[in-house]
Amino acid sequence: MLAEIIAVGSELLTPYRQDTNSLFLTEELNGLGVTVAFKTIVGDRKAHLMDAVSIAVHRADILLVMGGLGPTQDDLTREAVADALGVRLRRDGDLLAALYKRFAARRAIMPGNNSKQADVIESAAVLPNPHGTAPGQWLDTVVGEHRKLIVLLPGPPSELKPMFTSECLPRLRAVLPPRFIARRVLKMAMLPESEVDAKLAPIYTRFTDVETTILAHPGEVQLHMLCSKPFLELAQARVNELVARVEEEMEDAIFSSQGETLEQIVLYYLEIRGATVAVAESCTGGMVSQRLTSISGSSRSFVGGAIVYSDGVKTGLAEVPEELIEEKGAVSREVAEALARGIRRKTQATLGLAITGIAGPSGGSPEKPVGLVYIALDDGREISVTQKNFRGDRDRVRSLASQQALDMLRRKLM
Amino acid sequence: MLAEIIAVGSELLTPYRQDTNSLFLTEELNGLGVTVAFKTIVGDRKAHLMDAVSIAVHRADILLVMGGLGPTQDDLTREAVADALGVRLRRDGDLLAALYKRFAARRAIMPGNNSKQADVIESAAVLPNPHGTAPGQWLDTVVGEHRKLIVLLPGPPSELKPMFTSECLPRLRAVLPPRFIARRVLKMAMLPESEVDAKLAPIYTRFTDVETTILAHPGEVQLHMLCSKPFLELAQARVNELVARVEEEMEDAIFSSQGETLEQIVLYYLEIRGATVAVAESCTGGMVSQRLTSISGSSRSFVGGAIVYSDGVKTGLAEVPEELIEEKGAVSREVAEALARGIRRKTQATLGLAITGIAGPSGGSPEKPVGLVYIALDDGREISVTQKNFRGDRDRVRSLASQQALDMLRRKLM
Repeated sequence: MLAEIIAVGSELLTPYRQDTNSLFLTEELNGLGVTVAFKTIVGDRKAHLMDAVSIAVHRADILLVMGGLGPTQDDLTREAVADALGVRLRRDGDLLAALYKRFAARRAIMPGNNSKQADVIESAAVLPNPHGTAPGQWLDTVVGEHRKLIVLLPGPPSELKPMFTSECLPRLRAVLPPRFIARRVLKMAMLPESEVDAKLAPIYTRFTDVETTILAHPGEVQLHMLCSKPFLELAQARVNELVARVEEEMEDAIFSSQGETLEQIVLYYLEIRGATVAVAESCTGGMVSQRLTSISGSSRSFVGGAIVYSDGVKTGLAEVPEELIEEKGAVSREVAEALARGIRRKTQATLGLAITGIAGPSGGSPEKPVGLVYIALDDGREISVTQKNFRGDRDRVRSLASQQALDMLRRKLM
Repeated sequence: MLAEIIAVGSELLTPYRQDTNSLFLTEELNGLGVTVAFKTIVGDRKAHLMDAVSIAVHRADILLVMGGLGPTQDDLTREAVADALGVRLRRDGDLLAALYKRFAARRAIMPGNNSKQADVIESAAVLPNPHGTAPGQWLDTVVGEHRKLIVLLPGPPSELKPMFTSECLPRLRAVLPPRFIARRVLKMAMLPESEVDAKLAPIYTRFTDVETTILAHPGEVQLHMLCSKPFLELAQARVNELVARVEEEMEDAIFSSQGETLEQIVLYYLEIRGATVAVAESCTGGMVSQRLTSISGSSRSFVGGAIVYSDGVKTGLAEVPEELIEEKGAVSREVAEALARGIRRKTQATLGLAITGIAGPSGGSPEKPVGLVYIALDDGREISVTQKNFRGDRDRVRSLASQQALDMLRRKLM
């Protein structure tokens, strides 16, 4: 079964906006065993929209058209789809009454053009929209000699997603052969994508019935696995089997096996160890703190810390001796250690984590080049330090340093 | 002139990846007076790709096809475009020699399938690719009775962008009527999009020759203006005239008129005032520091500060009296003031900026609901405090609080 997704809206043909609904729809369709073969983005012009629909209905079995269902002159999806298929629109009395009622409830007069939201393609079913005014439409029809499913969905993600989940998924399941999906995501920190792929390709390529995708972000490689089978247990068993092989190969490089972020995992371990952490960030300038505090409940394990950007603040807030900075430089193993020790003492946290480095693009030297970062972790008994030479621009060096720091903390707690 | 952009690659039809090149290409084409009418995304299947090209060549004047130019079996763009147009591919001797040379330089034997990267559509010009192996192609042809420009570009943005800029722009300028573009972006902080639009729509709609787009992000509204004229001075004059009217209306709500970010503007003002700032962040957890330190050179004006997440750290690093927290609560006007004063003193910065609030989703109460945020700014003589009740999820409350804090700092320095 092939699907085509048509996104309607002139704003999607500007340099500023992009369709993202189709990523959600693709994931859902793949889960049903349906492949998305084409995506088309078209503006609010009836001729263009009719052209796109006519083409799609011939090359795809399932056609999802999203956007253009509102009340304005630019909302032309209903008319264009009906005309492209050569069928009529009927004005639905119930929908029209509901629209009048909605305006009356706000003590407003409904502008005339709103009534077109009650227009329904002949023989299409109406998909209720509890989150907006424009209902969706579901048309199960025959074009040429082929059965075609044509679905009209509202453009706003907050309306489209619940409508697809509650109205379209059950209808699609009723039509399509039964498929059950198992999905897992494994995440690894601070390994190059090429190394992960070299190790794992011989494993996952043997699982031809599991669709495996490797995604790389700065300092993180994710392995997405999806298996679709007529029975859920079968699908789960295959994915779990692959996960077990991958875990055997990668061991503790895997920090997450249920999709959690690195900061969630770190906070989870801190909590079960009954430990707290404080940070002293120089080159990362608050990135580690920001990531940890993005998680609700982080205050149970993260006490805070210092952004030790200037030398004076390194001394004032994290007790680093002025002489040490003068002698060794602010970016040095010794200052990283002193920062970790200092912030731990000052805040009385169980663990002190410190980062100092040269994020660039300026500030580097032959002995201390851009990308040089020291990360220190003090547990009160001993201080461990990692030295890294990251490559990339300022943003990348900072992202990698914060990722490395969180991973160091995770390994300490494991 | 209408253009269609075709993005080729099965990975663009998964839930994980999205074409972003088309945003860049759209901006460039709009600058030449060309409208993008369709975007099509198609996988690595020759029949589908031929279908997409056949359709596009009939409905658009300019066709940009990107991706599928590499050496693998999945790279089918050359063959598919040639077959769709009914023309031949010729193997280019110079390109082939260059490929052999490139492999020889690495002392490697070139795999046979690489030679297809030397295949060029009959009568197409070769577009050199200094950043990769796959050259682009430029075909100026007639289909039916219409002149068509068909351009093949490599998929990686690091190859596509420079190739488009150096090879395609001059060729397009030579073909298209002369257009010169003036662009400006105005940015405003902490105003609702609806309020900005209500004030500005009566102004910008009168400038029918300037294309105006309003974009909204949490705590920031951007006004993008573009004018295309046969002479650059004309285009600039019109955009500048609109900018002047908008500035008159919005006054100091506008923080940037050349595209700078709010953090860049704050650092700029700090520097020309010879001032420094330190921050004490509670609910924002490092967001303000992270934003300021994302800018290279920020160390000249930003000294650092404290992430005062726990009450103990508020006392330990920012000198807030324990009794004050007990009496007024960590989220209070008084504690915000004490944090701003304390961090300024501790770091000896010119200005102390503090944020304390309830980011949610938990931790709220009837008197202090989720979204309540206090922001305090101490300049050594007086402390001003702003109280806000932001709506939205944790991420949004934190983003709005950091934006409000930076804007407060900007207004202080103006």
